[in-house]
Amino acid sequence: MLLLHLSDVDEAGWAEKFRAALAPYPVVRRDDAYDPKDVRYIFVWKPKADAFDGLDNLKAVLSLGAGVDALLKHPNLPDAPIVRFVDYDLTRRMSDYVVANVTMHQRLYSRFQADQAARRWGQFYPPAARQTAVGIMGMGVLGQDAAQCLLALGFEVRCWSRTQKPVQGVEAFAGAGEFDAFLGGTDILVNLLPLTPDTAGILNSDTFSKLRRGGLDGGPVLVNPARGGHQREADIVKALGDGTLGAASLDVFEVEPLPADSPLWDIANCYITPHIAAISNEEAGVSYYAAIIKAHEAGKPLINVVDRSRGY
Amino acid sequence: MLLLHLSDVDEAGWAEKFRAALAPYPVVRRDDAYDPKDVRYIFVWKPKADAFDGLDNLKAVLSLGAGVDALLKHPNLPDAPIVRFVDYDLTRRMSDYVVANVTMHQRLYSRFQADQAARRWGQFYPPAARQTAVGIMGMGVLGQDAAQCLLALGFEVRCWSRTQKPVQGVEAFAGAGEFDAFLGGTDILVNLLPLTPDTAGILNSDTFSKLRRGGLDGGPVLVNPARGGHQREADIVKALGDGTLGAASLDVFEVEPLPADSPLWDIANCYITPHIAAISNEEAGVSYYAAIIKAHEAGKPLINVVDRSRGY
Repeated sequence: MLLLHLSDVDEAGWAEKFRAALAPYPVVRRDDAYDPKDVRYIFVWKPKADAFDGLDNLKAVLSLGAGVDALLKHPNLPDAPIVRFVDYDLTRRMSDYVVANVTMHQRLYSRFQADQAARRWGQFYPPAARQTAVGIMGMGVLGQDAAQCLLALGFEVRCWSRTQKPVQGVEAFAGAGEFDAFLGGTDILVNLLPLTPDTAGILNSDTFSKLRRGGLDGGPVLVNPARGGHQREADIVKALGDGTLGAASLDVFEVEPLPADSPLWDIANCYITPHIAAISNEEAGVSYYAAIIKAHEAGKPLINVVDRSRGY
Repeated sequence: MLLLHLSDVDEAGWAEKFRAALAPYPVVRRDDAYDPKDVRYIFVWKPKADAFDGLDNLKAVLSLGAGVDALLKHPNLPDAPIVRFVDYDLTRRMSDYVVANVTMHQRLYSRFQADQAARRWGQFYPPAARQTAVGIMGMGVLGQDAAQCLLALGFEVRCWSRTQKPVQGVEAFAGAGEFDAFLGGTDILVNLLPLTPDTAGILNSDTFSKLRRGGLDGGPVLVNPARGGHQREADIVKALGDGTLGAASLDVFEVEPLPADSPLWDIANCYITPHIAAISNEEAGVSYYAAIIKAHEAGKPLINVVDRSRGY
């Protein structure tokens, strides 16, 4: 039996699609009548404190989100394997966000926006993509896809990850020891890391001060569509104010929705979107997890299982 | 002998580079002492009225610009072949502009900018690239390169040109008879046409009214980095005002610099840059034309010669 436990999204819609994909395998929602001991899989988004109570025969926790940082903090998380959502559609949308924001800053959008507001005709030629170095933090599925898109456009792409991840055409850096060298050649920093105790707060003043200066007119740029927990917003405000950063595109925040009194709203070179870079797609999610449940019921191993020790 | 006749750019810098590339072949500037009858090639940018006087043995006019619309209107243009500049670096920079502006509008930049100004957290998911149709007008070197970049990002790409130009993965339309069908499936219209009597003013109210509606939240979008003569600015102001267009990115204008009293400056969804989408590169230009002069002096035919009857 598959139990759906989804908050803040259309649980009924997901249930209907899962039933169509898995029938005759039973699919239930929280308010349906069922015996918790029959539940072998639970599909969760923002699970309540009692979400896992009585699920004594659970085989796997299936996560609607690609990031499991919040789920791993659940006080009653059972020992069953956790499966992450690896979603091609979400991956492509995340790359859409990355490309749009990287190219906007490469083309010096802030400069021309200020000129337009002043009715000023100030000819200045932005650098070519091949003259602009994009540094991607995190080379999982999302980082690798973004790198491929940026390479196709001619950008110089470099990456930094926990362990060495060789990707053709990308200069790869790994671990704490190579972080400064990675930053020192980066004009536009793109964060696609998972949120873990090691990466929390990594987007801070010290990091910003090590980015390459002189490559991009106005200063280096931060693009963060990963998690608000990666960033120190007080440090971003300071860096945008003193020129350590030339601009920032932020889709995530320490507190969401971003509070109305946050100073970020009013900073001209700070581009805010309300956590909409990429969303998990119902069709893709049902197709992905229905295949995983069928395979596991047929005796095959689970895929994309979270390693709790590393946190993703 | 090569004569340089360049206004508004660094003629001395070009001359130095041409001399280094062509020596011992003679290279002169306007103020140098030379016999006009010795001039076999003239390299021009914004030539004065007397630019071609006395050049009785001219073999070719070499244009610094990729677009020759202004040159073709020169009152004393000789009969010699005109060679267009085909510049890989300029092509790549033009694609940079196109990608930055297409992705900005696909990601609904105007909507989120307005939300930020109002400190409003309004979650709304932009369409994926694959759900967004970009229609490219003009499939010369620039159009084809932009199409390849957009295809690599997953966009639906369609094109319209004077004659059928088949490009893999692109839905091709040609001629006046297929213009409406091309527009009717286009969410973001990108103009990369040459400016000719046939294409002057083609970006007008009638064209805008035929673009697809309902594809892109806020309405269809115009992106014009080609020539100001392609656009009717009064029609753009009207279309942005009444919602026929959701937004526009303009790098060129009917009169440049754009006059301080133009209403375009103040329209929130109109993104103005001062004719900086792409510039011809000195190194690339010298390398390209030095090779053409050497080959022609060795008896080989000229390449990229303008067809005066079609105007490019």
